[in-house]
Amino acid sequence: MTEPLPDLATLETPLALVDQRRLERNIHRMQSAIDALGVRLRPHVKTAKCVPIAVRQREAGAHGITVSTLKEADEFHAAGFDDILYAVGIVPNKIPHVLALRRRGCRLKVVVDSVEAADALVAAGRAAEHRFEALIEVDVDGQRAGVPPDSPLLVEIGRLLHDGGVELGGVMTHGGGSYAMRGHDALVAFAEQERSRCVQASARLREAGLPCTTVSVGSTPSALFAHSAAGVTEIRAGVYVFHDLVMAGLGVCRTEDIALSVLTTVIGHQPAKGWVLVDAGWMALSRDRGTQSQPIDQGYGLVCDEAGSVLDEWIVGAANQEHGIVTHREGLAPADLRQRFPVGSRLRVLPNHACATAAQFNRYLVSAPDGSWSTWARFGGW
Amino acid sequence: MTEPLPDLATLETPLALVDQRRLERNIHRMQSAIDALGVRLRPHVKTAKCVPIAVRQREAGAHGITVSTLKEADEFHAAGFDDILYAVGIVPNKIPHVLALRRRGCRLKVVVDSVEAADALVAAGRAAEHRFEALIEVDVDGQRAGVPPDSPLLVEIGRLLHDGGVELGGVMTHGGGSYAMRGHDALVAFAEQERSRCVQASARLREAGLPCTTVSVGSTPSALFAHSAAGVTEIRAGVYVFHDLVMAGLGVCRTEDIALSVLTTVIGHQPAKGWVLVDAGWMALSRDRGTQSQPIDQGYGLVCDEAGSVLDEWIVGAANQEHGIVTHREGLAPADLRQRFPVGSRLRVLPNHACATAAQFNRYLVSAPDGSWSTWARFGGW
Repeated sequence: MTEPLPDLATLETPLALVDQRRLERNIHRMQSAIDALGVRLRPHVKTAKCVPIAVRQREAGAHGITVSTLKEADEFHAAGFDDILYAVGIVPNKIPHVLALRRRGCRLKVVVDSVEAADALVAAGRAAEHRFEALIEVDVDGQRAGVPPDSPLLVEIGRLLHDGGVELGGVMTHGGGSYAMRGHDALVAFAEQERSRCVQASARLREAGLPCTTVSVGSTPSALFAHSAAGVTEIRAGVYVFHDLVMAGLGVCRTEDIALSVLTTVIGHQPAKGWVLVDAGWMALSRDRGTQSQPIDQGYGLVCDEAGSVLDEWIVGAANQEHGIVTHREGLAPADLRQRFPVGSRLRVLPNHACATAAQFNRYLVSAPDGSWSTWARFGGW
Repeated sequence: MTEPLPDLATLETPLALVDQRRLERNIHRMQSAIDALGVRLRPHVKTAKCVPIAVRQREAGAHGITVSTLKEADEFHAAGFDDILYAVGIVPNKIPHVLALRRRGCRLKVVVDSVEAADALVAAGRAAEHRFEALIEVDVDGQRAGVPPDSPLLVEIGRLLHDGGVELGGVMTHGGGSYAMRGHDALVAFAEQERSRCVQASARLREAGLPCTTVSVGSTPSALFAHSAAGVTEIRAGVYVFHDLVMAGLGVCRTEDIALSVLTTVIGHQPAKGWVLVDAGWMALSRDRGTQSQPIDQGYGLVCDEAGSVLDEWIVGAANQEHGIVTHREGLAPADLRQRFPVGSRLRVLPNHACATAAQFNRYLVSAPDGSWSTWARFGGW
C-alpha cells in the first residue's frame, strides 16, 4: 500500500527503513552478475522474508527461491512461489511438513548430507508413497555442513536416495567461508574453490551413474566475485538485497549501497562521556557484532543523519535492550553534543548484518524513488 | 490452553521451552526476597512479554509492571494491567501513544532525564489538557541514562515538571552496572550503591519542596543481593523469571534454575572436528554472547539432553542463521560422536541471555509440573 510521505518526526521509533532505489539497484547488480556467468540465480529469501522483495527479484530474472525455514516455504508458496529449495539439512520431524507442502503443489527440494537423513527420507517417501526431491550438500570450505566432494559418502548417499525412490536433484553447497576472505584476490580464489569442489562432487555422482541435474553454489561474496560458473547450474545469494556493514567491510558493496537502516530517536545524553542515547538498542539492531573481526569495527552499527548520510565517526558503541549508546569512534566528547544531537531528533543506523537486524522487525517502511512510502510486511518464526 | 504431553520427537524444531516449575520457583524466590525487604516488586515484563507469566507474577504479590516498549504497555493494558512504568526515556514521537493509553485508563508513567524531554512533556500536557505522570531517571553507576543524584539538573527537571503541570511521581534508576560485578561482596556493595544514590536523589527533590512518592530501583542481581531497601518504595527486576547463563555466571542463580531453553534437532556431523550440527542457529538462540566476558564462556549456549540435563562440556560453539555447531568445550572429537548425538535426536540449549533468546520466538511451549503442556503466546515489536 503506497502512502504519501510521512513526516518522520511523527513516526514512533525504532523502525526499519528500506531505500527502494538501493534495493532495486542491488537486485539488478546481482542479477546482471549471475546473468553474465550464464547461470540461474536462486535468491535466498531468508534475509528480507518479504514477498514484495522476492517478487522484485523474480521480475529481475531470478528462477526459484531458497529458504532457511519451512515457515518461509509456507509463506512464499502461498504468495505464488513454487520452486523452493530448503537449504538446511532435513530431519525426520520436518518431513511431514515438507510432504504437506509438496502435496499442495510446491516443488520443495530438501538437502541431505548423511546416511541417516537419506534413510529417513527414503523411509518417509515409501510410507507416504511420495517421491521427494533431494540435493546432497557438499562441504567446500570446512565451515559448516556437507559431505567432502572426494568422500565415498557422497556416492553412498546418492545411491541410497536414488535407489530408495527419492529424486536425486544434484548437489548444493554454501560457501560461507567467503565471509572470512579479505581482499579481491582472496574472494575470487574462494569463489573458484567453491565452484570447482561442488562441480567435482557432481562429476563423481555422474561417474557413478547417478543423476545430477542441479549444481547449486553460492553466498553473496562468492556470487559477486566468481569469474566462472563452468559446471554450475545455479547460484544462490541472499544478503545482497540489503547489503550491510559486513559486506561493505569485505569490499562487496559500498556503505551507500546498504538499503536497510533503523530509524531511531535521541532520548538523552551523557555529555561528559560523549554519549548520545537513542531508542534503538539490541532489540532493534540485533546483537550481531559481525564487524568485530573486521579491520573496522562498527560496534552495533554506523550512524547516519535522518536523511541517511553517514556520520563517519559515530557508531552505536554499546547497546542494551531498548537503549543504544552512540559514541564517537575515537571517544571524543564534543562540547556541542546536545546541540548536534538534540533530544527528539532522529538518526539512522546501518546494520552490521542485515539478516539479523531485519529479523527484529515485522514490517519495513519503504521509501520509493518518487518520494512515496509503503509498508511491506515481513514475517519471522518457524 | 493445556494439552496432553506431546511427543517431543514429532515437534518441529527449533522451539522455545519453558519449565513451569522452575519459572514459578524463580517468581516466588524473587517475590520473597523483595517481601523480606519490605517494599513492592514491580516486575519488568520485557523478558518474557507473555501475559500468563505476568499474571503469575501478580498472583505471587507483584504490584504493577515495568515495560520497555509502548507495545508492551498496549498488550499488558489490554490484558488487565493498568499500573505501568515505561522505563525508557520519553521522546516527543511517543507522547501521543502515551496519551492514548492514559485516556484508555492506563496509569502509565514515563521517565525523563533531560530538560528537553521535560519541556516536551509539559508542552504536550498543556496542549492536550492532560496531567501526565513522570519519574526522573537517576544515574547511579555511569552505565547508561539518568541524572547524577548530586546534579543541579535533578531539581531543575523536577521543578520544570511539577510547575508545568506534570505529576512528579518520584525517581527511578536501573542498576545495570550489577551485570559487571563479580562475586557476592561486589553484588551486595553494588546494590547498596544503587539504593543509596537513588535515595539521595529523592531526598534532594524533597528538600527542594518537590513531591517524590516513588523511589524505584532495580536489576535482577541487585534485587537479589540487596541487604536494605531503606528509603526505597519499589524494586524492579525482569530476567529472574527465566534466569540464564549470564545470571548463573554471576552467581545469581544455578543452571538448574534456568526455565527457558531452546529445543533443537541434530541435523548432521563433522566427525573429524567433533562438530554436531543442530537446527538452532543464531535466529533461535540470538546473537547474544553475554558470557563471553565472564570466566566461563558458554558460546551461544550450554547444551542439555532432551530431558534437560546439562551435558557440561558441550556448548553451541558457533552459529549461522539456522545452523548451530555444538562442540566440546575442550575441542574433543569423540569416536562415538554420531552415536551419542544421532541425526534426528533432540537437545536443549540454555540461553546466554533469556531476554534476547525469548525475543526470537512468538510462543512458548510450557511444561507444567503435572506433565501437561501448554502454549503461551509471546509478542514482540514496537
